Amino acid sequence: MPDPLGRIARFRRRPVRVNWRASLGVVGSILLWLAAPLAFPLLLAAYYGEPLRPFLAAIAVTLVVGRGLQGLSGDADIGGREAFLMVALAWLAVGLIGAIPFLVAGNGVIAHPIDALFESMSGITTTGATVLVDFSVHDRSILMWRQLIQWLGGLGILVLAISVLSQLSIGGTQLMETETQTQDVQKLSPHIEETARMLWSLYAGITLACAGTLYALSHLGVAPNMTPYNALAHALTAVATAGFSPDPGSVGAFSRAAQWTIIPFMFIGATNFILIYHFVRGDWLRPVRNEEFRYYVGVVIGTTVLLALLLLVDPETSLPIEAKIRHASFQVVSILTTTGFATIDFNGWSAASKHVLFLLMFLGGMAGSTTCSIKLLRWIIVLKGFRRDLFTAAHPSAIRPIRLGDRVVEEETVRDVYAYTLVSIVIFFGLTAFIAVDGARTGLELTEFEAMSAAAATFFNIGPAFGIAGPFGSYHPFSDLTKLAMIALMWVGRIEIIPVFVLLTPGYWRS
Amino acid sequence: MPDPLGRIARFRRRPVRVNWRASLGVVGSILLWLAAPLAFPLLLAAYYGEPLRPFLAAIAVTLVVGRGLQGLSGDADIGGREAFLMVALAWLAVGLIGAIPFLVAGNGVIAHPIDALFESMSGITTTGATVLVDFSVHDRSILMWRQLIQWLGGLGILVLAISVLSQLSIGGTQLMETETQTQDVQKLSPHIEETARMLWSLYAGITLACAGTLYALSHLGVAPNMTPYNALAHALTAVATAGFSPDPGSVGAFSRAAQWTIIPFMFIGATNFILIYHFVRGDWLRPVRNEEFRYYVGVVIGTTVLLALLLLVDPETSLPIEAKIRHASFQVVSILTTTGFATIDFNGWSAASKHVLFLLMFLGGMAGSTTCSIKLLRWIIVLKGFRRDLFTAAHPSAIRPIRLGDRVVEEETVRDVYAYTLVSIVIFFGLTAFIAVDGARTGLELTEFEAMSAAAATFFNIGPAFGIAGPFGSYHPFSDLTKLAMIALMWVGRIEIIPVFVLLTPGYWRS
Ligand SMILES: [K+]
Ligand SMILES: [K+]
Repeated sequence: MPDPLGRIARFRRRPVRVNWRASLGVVGSILLWLAAPLAFPLLLAAYYGEPLRPFLAAIAVTLVVGRGLQGLSGDADIGGREAFLMVALAWLAVGLIGAIPFLVAGNGVIAHPIDALFESMSGITTTGATVLVDFSVHDRSILMWRQLIQWLGGLGILVLAISVLSQLSIGGTQLMETETQTQDVQKLSPHIEETARMLWSLYAGITLACAGTLYALSHLGVAPNMTPYNALAHALTAVATAGFSPDPGSVGAFSRAAQWTIIPFMFIGATNFILIYHFVRGDWLRPVRNEEFRYYVGVVIGTTVLLALLLLVDPETSLPIEAKIRHASFQVVSILTTTGFATIDFNGWSAASKHVLFLLMFLGGMAGSTTCSIKLLRWIIVLKGFRRDLFTAAHPSAIRPIRLGDRVVEEETVRDVYAYTLVSIVIFFGLTAFIAVDGARTGLELTEFEAMSAAAATFFNIGPAFGIAGPFGSYHPFSDLTKLAMIALMWVGRIEIIPVFVLLTPGYWRS
Repeated sequence: MPDPLGRIARFRRRPVRVNWRASLGVVGSILLWLAAPLAFPLLLAAYYGEPLRPFLAAIAVTLVVGRGLQGLSGDADIGGREAFLMVALAWLAVGLIGAIPFLVAGNGVIAHPIDALFESMSGITTTGATVLVDFSVHDRSILMWRQLIQWLGGLGILVLAISVLSQLSIGGTQLMETETQTQDVQKLSPHIEETARMLWSLYAGITLACAGTLYALSHLGVAPNMTPYNALAHALTAVATAGFSPDPGSVGAFSRAAQWTIIPFMFIGATNFILIYHFVRGDWLRPVRNEEFRYYVGVVIGTTVLLALLLLVDPETSLPIEAKIRHASFQVVSILTTTGFATIDFNGWSAASKHVLFLLMFLGGMAGSTTCSIKLLRWIIVLKGFRRDLFTAAHPSAIRPIRLGDRVVEEETVRDVYAYTLVSIVIFFGLTAFIAVDGARTGLELTEFEAMSAAAATFFNIGPAFGIAGPFGSYHPFSDLTKLAMIALMWVGRIEIIPVFVLLTPGYWRS
C-alpha cells in the first residue's frame, strides 16, 4: 500500500497544473485504511447481536472506492497545492463513508441522507453537533461508530496539524511547537512518518488511560453506570475534544467523580501533543516553558472563576456550591477545548453565564492538538501584534518585532494570522445571517442568539449551541438548506478554512 | 488666537518626550471656539423664554478653561504623538463641556452627572444613544443643543478624518480619497486649512439644503409637523449621521415624505466629502469612478432588497407594501450610515430582519465622511486581502499586490487594516461581555442579543440597539458602571481607537 505521509513529505512547489490524480490517490489510501476501524463496530454488533449490514456495507464501499481512487494516481509526488485538495477531499470522503452505517441501519432521523451526512460530518470534524432526537432507537454499535469516527477525526487532525498544515504555513500554523522546533521543511520531512507514529501511540495511550480511569470509577463504586462501553465511548470523544455521547444526557448522565475525571482529559486533548510527548518523556517543565500553554492555563482558570462567580450570585440557579464549581469548571473546559460535553443544561443559566461560554467558542485550545476554533496561538499573536502596533503608532520609526517564546515572528506571518482570525469571524457572521434568514424563510422561530450560537458551534466545531440546539437539544429542526450550510462549514472550519477556500479560486486550478 | 490646524500641519516625528503642553494648547483653542456654537441655543432660549443659565454657564466654563489650557502651551509645533493626545483630549473636553447645559438645566434623568455625560458624549461622538426617558420635561433650547453638539461632532470628525487621521495612517486611513490623492505629508500640509474651510462650507451647505427641503415639505402640506425647529434639528443630525431627534418618536413622528427626504441626506453624510466636493464642482462621474462608492451603493441596494423581502414575507408585520419598502430603505440607510434614526420600532421585526440590521452595524459608510464603525474602505481591503491570500496559498512564489482603484496598497497598510478591523471586533466582544456580566451583577435582565446590540450600537456609534435600548427605548436602565464603559468606548470608537489606546501604553510617554 503506498504511503501517503511519505509522499506529502516530499513537498515540491511547482508552477504546473494541479495533479488532482495524485491527491485522489492519497484519499484512496486513506479510505482503504478506514476499513480497519470499521471492523470495531462490526465486532461490537456481532457481540450484541445487532445487524452487521451497516458496517459491512461501509467496509465494502470504502474498499471499492478506496482501491478505485488509488488506481487513479501514478506514483507522482504531491506538492502544496495537491495537499490542499487531498486534505479537503479526505475529510469529505470519510464524512460520506461515515454516513453509510446510519443510512443502512435506517433507524431514527439519520435514516434521512442529509441528517446522516450531518451526523457523520459532525463526527469526523470532531464537532459533536447532533441531529439525533431519540437515542433509544439506535443500536449500540451505531452509537459507538459515532464515537469512533470522532476519535478518528481527532487523530486525523493531529497528524494534519503537526505534519501538514505547519508546513503549508496556513494562518501562522508554522508557529506551533512542532517536533523539531524548526520551520525548515527539508529537515522536518524525514521525520513525518515517525511523528505520525508517535502521535498515534500517544493519542491511543491517553485514550486508554481515560477509558481505564473511568471504568475504574465504576469498580470503586463512585460511577455505577460507567460500564466498559460508556467508559470507552466517552474516552474516545474526550481526548478528541469531540463531544458526542451515546447517552442523551451527555456527561450529565454520570456521577460527579466521572465528571471531574473527564475535565483533565479534555484539557489534555486541547494541549499541543508535542508538549505532551516531551512531558511524558520526562521533560516535565516543557509545558510550563511554553508561552501558549501558560495562556491556556490562564484562560481556563480565569474564566472558570468568572463563571463560578456568575453561577454563585445567580439567584435562579439553585445548586449546592460544589455543583456550581463543578459545572463551571466542566463547561469552561468543555467549551474552551471545543469538546462540547455537557454536565447540565446551561440553557437555563443567566444571559451573562451563557455569553461567557459563547465567547469561549471563539478561542479554542492550543495549536497542534485536537482542538478546533481559532486557537490560542493565533490570539496571542493578535494581542502581541496590537500591542506592537500601538508602540509603532507613537514611534513610527521604531522597529519592534513580535516574539513568541524565544523566536521572532515574521511580519508576513503576523499578517497571515490577522487574516485567518478575521476571516474566521467574517465566516461566522455570514453563517449567522444565513441561519437567521433561512430560519425566517422556513418559519423556524429562532432568536438572534440561537442563530449566532448555532453558527459558532458548528463552524468552530464546538457542538452544542444555545436554545433549540442546546446541550440536550438537537440540530434536527433546522432546515435541510441550513444543515447543508452547516455541513459545509464544519468541514471548512475543521481543516483550517484555506484548503477548501483555495479550491474555489480559479487561480488554484491554473498553472 | 493660534491656529491649531496650521500647527498640526507641521508634523514632525521626533523621538523626544511627548509635548503634552502643546496638545493641551490646541484643545484650549478648540474650547474657545466652542463658545460660538453655544450662542445658538442661548439665543433660542431667549427667544422661547427658557432659562439662559445652562448655556451661559457652559460658555463661561469653556472660555475660562479654554483660555487656561491655551496659556499652557508655548508656540511649539505639535507632532504625531501630540496629535494623538490632542485628538483624544479634544473629544473628551468637548464631551465634558457639552454636559454642562444638561446639568445646569437640571431636568429629567440628565440632571445626574453620569447620564449628562453619557448624553453629551453620545452627542459629540455622533452616536445618538440616548438616556432620555421623558422628552417633554426638557426645554426646546436644551433639545436643540443635543442636536447641535452632534452636528459639531460630525464636522469635527470630517476635519479629523481627512486632515489628521489620513496623515497618521491609522488602520489604513491614508487610503481614503483625500483632496490631493497623495500620501505625501509635505505636499498636503499647506492645504489643510483650505481643506477644513472647504469641508465646513460643504457640510453647512448640505445641512441647510436638508433643513430647507424638510421645511418646504411642510409648506407643500405633506409634512405638517416639520416646523423650522424640527427641520433644522433633523437636518443637523442627518448630515452628521448622528441620529438624535428632539422627538421621542424619532423620524417616525413625521410623514412619509419627510422620511423619504431624509434617506438621501443620511446617504450623503456617509459619503466621502472629497467626492461630494468634486461632484458639486461639476465632476459628476467622480463618485462612480470611486471603488468604495460603488461598493457603498451596492451594499445599500443589496441589503434594502433583502430586508424588504424579509418584511414582505413576515406574516407578523402587517403594513402596506409601500410602508414595508420605505421602512426597509430607511432603516438600512440609517444603520449602515451609522445615523440611527428610526421610522418604526424595528424591535418588533423578525429575528432575521433584526439580525441583518445588526450585521450592518459592523460595516459603516465611506471613509472620509461623518460615518462611524469600521467603514467600507477597510472591509474592501480585507476582502481583497483574503482573495489575494488564497491565490498566494496556491502559488507561494507569486507576488500579487492589492489594488484600490489605480493605486497599489502597501503590504504594511493591509496588515494595519486587518489589525484595525480585528481590534474593533475584539473590543466589541469585550464590551458585550462587560455589559452582560455587569447586567447580571446589577440584576438587569438582559438577553444576550440586547447586550451584543447595545455594545455594537455604542462602540460603533450607531445609537439605537435592540431590546431595552431600542429605537424608541433608552439606555437609562443600564448601570452607572456600564454607562461609564459605554461613554469610554463611544469616545474610543469615534476617534478610531488608536489615539486613545496609544495613550495607555508606557512607550507613548517615553522618549
Ligand atoms: K466538539
Ligand atoms: K449615530
